Amino acid sequence: MSRRPTDPAELLAAARAGDRGALARLLSMVERGGPDARAVGRLTHPLGGAVTTVGVTGAPGAGKSTLTSALVRAMRADGERVAVLAVDPSSPFTGGAILGDRVRMGEHALDDEVFIRSMATRGHLGGLSLAVPEAVRLLDAVGLPWVLLETVGVGQVEVEVAGEADTTVVVVNPGWGDAVQANKAGLMEIADVFVVNKADRAGVDDTVADLQRMLSLRAGAAGWRPPLVRTVATTGEGVAELWAALRDHAEWARSSGELDRRRRTRLESELRRILTARLLQRATELAEGRAYDEALADVLARRTDPWSAADALLA
Amino acid sequence: MSRRPTDPAELLAAARAGDRGALARLLSMVERGGPDARAVGRLTHPLGGAVTTVGVTGAPGAGKSTLTSALVRAMRADGERVAVLAVDPSSPFTGGAILGDRVRMGEHALDDEVFIRSMATRGHLGGLSLAVPEAVRLLDAVGLPWVLLETVGVGQVEVEVAGEADTTVVVVNPGWGDAVQANKAGLMEIADVFVVNKADRAGVDDTVADLQRMLSLRAGAAGWRPPLVRTVATTGEGVAELWAALRDHAEWARSSGELDRRRRTRLESELRRILTARLLQRATELAEGRAYDEALADVLARRTDPWSAADALLA
Repeated sequence: MSRRPTDPAELLAAARAGDRGALARLLSMVERGGPDARAVGRLTHPLGGAVTTVGVTGAPGAGKSTLTSALVRAMRADGERVAVLAVDPSSPFTGGAILGDRVRMGEHALDDEVFIRSMATRGHLGGLSLAVPEAVRLLDAVGLPWVLLETVGVGQVEVEVAGEADTTVVVVNPGWGDAVQANKAGLMEIADVFVVNKADRAGVDDTVADLQRMLSLRAGAAGWRPPLVRTVATTGEGVAELWAALRDHAEWARSSGELDRRRRTRLESELRRILTARLLQRATELAEGRAYDEALADVLARRTDPWSAADALLA
Repeated sequence: MSRRPTDPAELLAAARAGDRGALARLLSMVERGGPDARAVGRLTHPLGGAVTTVGVTGAPGAGKSTLTSALVRAMRADGERVAVLAVDPSSPFTGGAILGDRVRMGEHALDDEVFIRSMATRGHLGGLSLAVPEAVRLLDAVGLPWVLLETVGVGQVEVEVAGEADTTVVVVNPGWGDAVQANKAGLMEIADVFVVNKADRAGVDDTVADLQRMLSLRAGAAGWRPPLVRTVATTGEGVAELWAALRDHAEWARSSGELDRRRRTRLESELRRILTARLLQRATELAEGRAYDEALADVLARRTDPWSAADALLA
């Protein structure tokens, strides 16, 4: 039995040579957070820059999983390699659930050029807002050219995750309004491509007209008007058009400078989140030591005040 | 025209000598946060320890303001001096609004032994969760024996503020259930005294029976069963009983050790919040300097990674 490496650098070398097990273990490190996750980030950031990320969001039941699976099929037919990260902020479970992932996208489970993984927060500081960009950086560093970020719902976190992609796809259904009422404006704002899935259902023309009206009011990125693609994910209808729209948007974003602008904004936001997470971690550590217990005793006895005690702990 | 002091120590000396204008200016400092607020905290913490705080919470429209005003009248009739802090987490406006405060509790506006002030967050880090204990500490240090903390609603923040008092009064009305459905359990948990206000309305007996049933299921502090007081705040009916219940609870809390336990828990939680606020402030400062801009440029050019850049900024 060969030794299984646990060192991030060794694992990364193996993953870059095509070892999917090593990649899975690195993703687990990223998901857990902590020193290993930071080590992975240090190693992978200089290696990347070629990946295109596509966020897929929409109300639960809109058919995002089926659509993502159909999209992967279209990408594979063109010979593209692709990773799918299914992001679920509400779930305590996680991508270690390999069986779940295989069942989820069964048709791609045996395809070595498709990497599927679900991610959930494990409650560490910063959670998904730190883990997702780190995971993308890792997939980029091992040479995967496309990463699909599929989110489960239309809550604040999901929309943020999907909105931080190079291209964001918003999936709706005929008569979608009620399902996403609370976050309609947020979805309109982040969409680069609109998909009306289940387009064989009644009301699809009204929904398309409704979206077109809203889009005409939107102050979007200059030079790009989000296309509206009708799909029936279960039959594959319209999926080739979606894949073409994604390539169009990626090409436009690259040539217009929009991609650079987005990446700059994302990295700046990530650096701020890392600073905040590191300092909050320090607050937690400070509140666990013996010095803290002594400081608290002094505050309770009014030998010092909380502000001076905090200053002393921070010094 | 005499010089108006701006130094916290000078202002505090004046406030302790009875200067209400100085006290108001100190409260504004506390509300604004920052170095002055911390200076006030440093000065006042060693001077206090005698105040009793009473949190008054309940759904909007339950009659909390009228009840608080009636309670102040009962306390004044017994010769007690009292401060009222009306806490509104949702309002961008604040206690500088002296006219509003006077209108609010007009009958006490000219009484020098009653100090009325509304507080709102001004958006500084930590917000009300830091400002309210600091304000209580200040009122304590100037020798006010009672502070009523009246909160506007039953949201998370309001319940937290009211629940961090020495005695917490939950005000409901006949048929209260619907108004506070979302936070019924939270209110049951923090109540030391229940008031059924507008007790001249239909359904009061059902509401009292309902509350008694819920209270019998509650695992509360051993040795204290929250009394149920029926009031009609507009006529003053039942307010003497409420005032008696507050004195009873204060006496029980002092003799049973519950007061010490609560104060310890509160101070510990405050010290943690101060540490967190100080470190988050540092994150904000770090993200504004020239070193940050240089670090970001290095990250964008992939000369370094975000984790190493954060470490360098924190070093």
